[in-house]
Amino acid sequence: MSETSLDIRTQRLHKPVDVAEYLFTRLHQIGIRSVHGLPGDFNLVALDYVPKAGLKWVGSVNELNAAYAADGYARVKGISALVTTFGVGELSAINGVAGAFSEHVPIVHIVGCPSTISQRNGMLLHHTLGTGDFNVYADMNAPISCEVARLNKPSEIADQIDHTLRECWIRSRPVYIMLPTDMVQKKLEGQRLDTPIDLSEPKNEEEREDYVVDVVLKYLHAAKNPIILVDACAVRHRVLEEVHDLVEKTQLPVFVTPMGKSAINETHATYGGVYAGNGSQPEVAARVEAADLVLSIGSLKSDFNTAGFSYRTSQLNTIDFHSTHCVVRYSEYPGVHMKGVLRKIVDRVDVSKLPRTSSPPVVNKVSENLDDSQTITQAWFWPRFGEFLKENDIVVTETGTANFGIWETKFPAGVTGLNQTLWGSIGWSVGATQGAALAAVDMGTDRRTVLLVGDGSFQLACQEVSTIVRHNLHVTIFLIYNEGFTIERWIHGMDAEYNDITRWKYTEIPSAFGASPENVKTYVVKTKDCLEKLLTNEEFNKAKGLQFVELWMPKEDAPRALKITAEISAKTNAKTE
Amino acid sequence: MSETSLDIRTQRLHKPVDVAEYLFTRLHQIGIRSVHGLPGDFNLVALDYVPKAGLKWVGSVNELNAAYAADGYARVKGISALVTTFGVGELSAINGVAGAFSEHVPIVHIVGCPSTISQRNGMLLHHTLGTGDFNVYADMNAPISCEVARLNKPSEIADQIDHTLRECWIRSRPVYIMLPTDMVQKKLEGQRLDTPIDLSEPKNEEEREDYVVDVVLKYLHAAKNPIILVDACAVRHRVLEEVHDLVEKTQLPVFVTPMGKSAINETHATYGGVYAGNGSQPEVAARVEAADLVLSIGSLKSDFNTAGFSYRTSQLNTIDFHSTHCVVRYSEYPGVHMKGVLRKIVDRVDVSKLPRTSSPPVVNKVSENLDDSQTITQAWFWPRFGEFLKENDIVVTETGTANFGIWETKFPAGVTGLNQTLWGSIGWSVGATQGAALAAVDMGTDRRTVLLVGDGSFQLACQEVSTIVRHNLHVTIFLIYNEGFTIERWIHGMDAEYNDITRWKYTEIPSAFGASPENVKTYVVKTKDCLEKLLTNEEFNKAKGLQFVELWMPKEDAPRALKITAEISAKTNAKTE
Repeated sequence: MSETSLDIRTQRLHKPVDVAEYLFTRLHQIGIRSVHGLPGDFNLVALDYVPKAGLKWVGSVNELNAAYAADGYARVKGISALVTTFGVGELSAINGVAGAFSEHVPIVHIVGCPSTISQRNGMLLHHTLGTGDFNVYADMNAPISCEVARLNKPSEIADQIDHTLRECWIRSRPVYIMLPTDMVQKKLEGQRLDTPIDLSEPKNEEEREDYVVDVVLKYLHAAKNPIILVDACAVRHRVLEEVHDLVEKTQLPVFVTPMGKSAINETHATYGGVYAGNGSQPEVAARVEAADLVLSIGSLKSDFNTAGFSYRTSQLNTIDFHSTHCVVRYSEYPGVHMKGVLRKIVDRVDVSKLPRTSSPPVVNKVSENLDDSQTITQAWFWPRFGEFLKENDIVVTETGTANFGIWETKFPAGVTGLNQTLWGSIGWSVGATQGAALAAVDMGTDRRTVLLVGDGSFQLACQEVSTIVRHNLHVTIFLIYNEGFTIERWIHGMDAEYNDITRWKYTEIPSAFGASPENVKTYVVKTKDCLEKLLTNEEFNKAKGLQFVELWMPKEDAPRALKITAEISAKTNAKTE
Repeated sequence: MSETSLDIRTQRLHKPVDVAEYLFTRLHQIGIRSVHGLPGDFNLVALDYVPKAGLKWVGSVNELNAAYAADGYARVKGISALVTTFGVGELSAINGVAGAFSEHVPIVHIVGCPSTISQRNGMLLHHTLGTGDFNVYADMNAPISCEVARLNKPSEIADQIDHTLRECWIRSRPVYIMLPTDMVQKKLEGQRLDTPIDLSEPKNEEEREDYVVDVVLKYLHAAKNPIILVDACAVRHRVLEEVHDLVEKTQLPVFVTPMGKSAINETHATYGGVYAGNGSQPEVAARVEAADLVLSIGSLKSDFNTAGFSYRTSQLNTIDFHSTHCVVRYSEYPGVHMKGVLRKIVDRVDVSKLPRTSSPPVVNKVSENLDDSQTITQAWFWPRFGEFLKENDIVVTETGTANFGIWETKFPAGVTGLNQTLWGSIGWSVGATQGAALAAVDMGTDRRTVLLVGDGSFQLACQEVSTIVRHNLHVTIFLIYNEGFTIERWIHGMDAEYNDITRWKYTEIPSAFGASPENVKTYVVKTKDCLEKLLTNEEFNKAKGLQFVELWMPKEDAPRALKITAEISAKTNAKTE
């Protein structure tokens, strides 16, 4: 940049800072400590500012895994950042970002792109479609971003950044920021950085909010058998404090959906288990469906989250709390955010008017599912795995058998469970595990991160193990070795070639990806006795560095809930008018 | 499907066939023999028809690699097919398909999606954004597809398929076909399959074509020093037969661009080398820029293909032949396809009016670049590699040092060189190699496929080695071990952390991905002598199965042309008004 132009632009700035410094400083201010992504020539200069802002560069192995990891990081730390390069990088990441959009996970996606001059001149640059269109990728990203910001005019950039980061947080969805190479070092007013971005939830209109609260309390005080059902959006839209206070004060029976699992302390006296219609344990289904009032908080009733839309609850007995509206039976209240409503319900509920009812006891049914063979069955494994878990573990389950098996696992207090049940992109969990484990470190905790992933899914994203090794994260991987895509087999093609995969030597993978014997331990487990020994082994429970377990399960075995859901999916796919 | 509805729909069909059978039979008819992709519950039933149509299911490891592989397959076999599942699968592949669009490679992308009934009902299914919009992914694919077909009405499907496949071939770009689960087994008229799809190029309007031919011949016959320059679109739009006939008949000096490399037999008497402006060998630049007429065939003047737009040729001395138009000096002829024009020039050129001029001799400059150290330098390696190559080899070079180094390599006759210089997605070459090698097998040839890829790029797509092993393809991989993203280092951040990668144990990779000692040989090569021994080893030259060479080169060493191009890129990125 020429001296003169610099002077002209900065003469009115009290504390000039470069655009990239401003952006990355804002990321640090909103809680991000590590930045996922890959270098590319259109983002290189910007990346020089990452360490200057006190941020760690993760150095991901590919963009899709980086996006999965950013997703996992945000689910634990609250929000995350992903930096890619124009075209090739951002499009490689787009499925991972789409998953975050679908599942309400806030990721700040920053794309380094050609200079505004190159764009104006429509230059035939590498990473372009050769059409001269430099907005095409931003347009492709628009449907999976709650805000798109093209940083083309220095005078507008600070406002764009602050607005976009707020949208990302408030709406809990990805945003897309296009950063041209010639804007990276343009000067902004640095004094703005002294004032943090306002991330507070917009307040509901008071009279309207009070009205909804009164209506809810009227039904709640009249109910003979009310329960609370907590789903994904209660987690994603940050109302768990209100939910926990509500449960504590009312002592009502509380259940979670598969996507809401770990939102509630599963050792709590009134916790009743996982409800997913026909996919629930019989006593859970009976209890929920017998309720005369369901306080449904942050529900996301997708096919796999409801075992194929098999709820047997009536909207006449339901009150829905959402981040964008509330619904009492069939009365809708658009624009009323659940947060304020739930807080006032906690404050104003008259517990003397509430019944004392009980929840079904929740235990890990290990002995009930024990058979006399040494084969590790899905039915026996998941409860047994629950007994292995410790307080505050992070548990990541992959789409497939793990996502359905985990329904049968009772978590200790403080466990965070991550799953991607709505988007269901196989391979997600491997990247998400890296991001989640890194987030735990960035939060100064020593939590154990445990991944349960099938061999088919693992293959898609395997190289993320390299990033886990690079940062020496404490990760225990249970690779379910069952020879292919078992969830697909149960939907269609039990013996089809297309559901088979190549047999890898999985325990060689960590070493090939750079792990030294000091920071990785690998195990092959084929029997119940062998697994018992491992799960009770003291060193294994310490879980230092990477632990990689190849866990043999039968090819055609699947959790109860998966079989039910797969059958309904197959029917839905085949249905013709 | 109910009996009655079947009866109603098929009563007028002479030879009813299922939609999936029709589609895959058409793929076989246009020359596809292997289908890349992954299973997903929305495409499973369709996949049952792959073997029925005489097609091989590749069983790729992830969708991005599958798209890269389909790209490589199409570059060798002419066209390819990719099957993914709704949302998660297709979006994982989108960067690979975008590359094929950018580089004019015909891929038939078939996406298995939810039934038209589920779509109509806006069901909250897995793999959706939760918005009820089932067209969003097709819309995201539209900018990188030359045709989008949604197969929703049985009565239209046969026409849609035939039209879409023709567009894919004629325009040599990807097409996108959305196949709902409930359409897979709908009945079509099978008699249509007795008539192949017409894939012939549309003819130019004769009078217009003759006019262009006359103008071209006027300038050609008057030229004192004409040359031919062959670029990417001559290959992609299938005019090489016309080009070869033109070279044979006129014996004019002929040059190629980096993206056009291997379009011309490099042992031909009049072959003069690779022209890329300042990136050319001095004698090549001198010869091309001294020409008073450049017959430029299928040019694609991107930054990396022209060493940063550094051509020193004048449009006043240039005739451009394209698939969509021709340009003589500044006179444009829209709608005139080069194919017909070139054929008539071959037929009508009066060779007695052409000068006898010479081309610079092209040799592999091995000794000229030999120094007295044992270090394997980029300058020495590429010519030496040229001496190793055999006739009809397939050579795949990755974006980075390999794509620029290969400019210094003289190919034997019949070699096919593959590169992705315009799109430049790192990792592409690993997938493309699998597809190219499989295409060679499908064509009944025993060609050797040789990949040159940097360690940084290899990591992104490493698991494609598993597919190479799965099909026991004859692939030799030279992994350039130079500790990171050297091309980025030369653009910006020579010592930056973000250009570093984790050190893998690369030679352990094939075994971890399932290769047995019988079908893989691995080598670590750190010295010139060691490389000499390997390149002259008889067994290594037979190249059976997978051969994996970890080839050590200095971290900061780069080919001459890369240094020039990187410097110009850095300037372009930094330029401010």
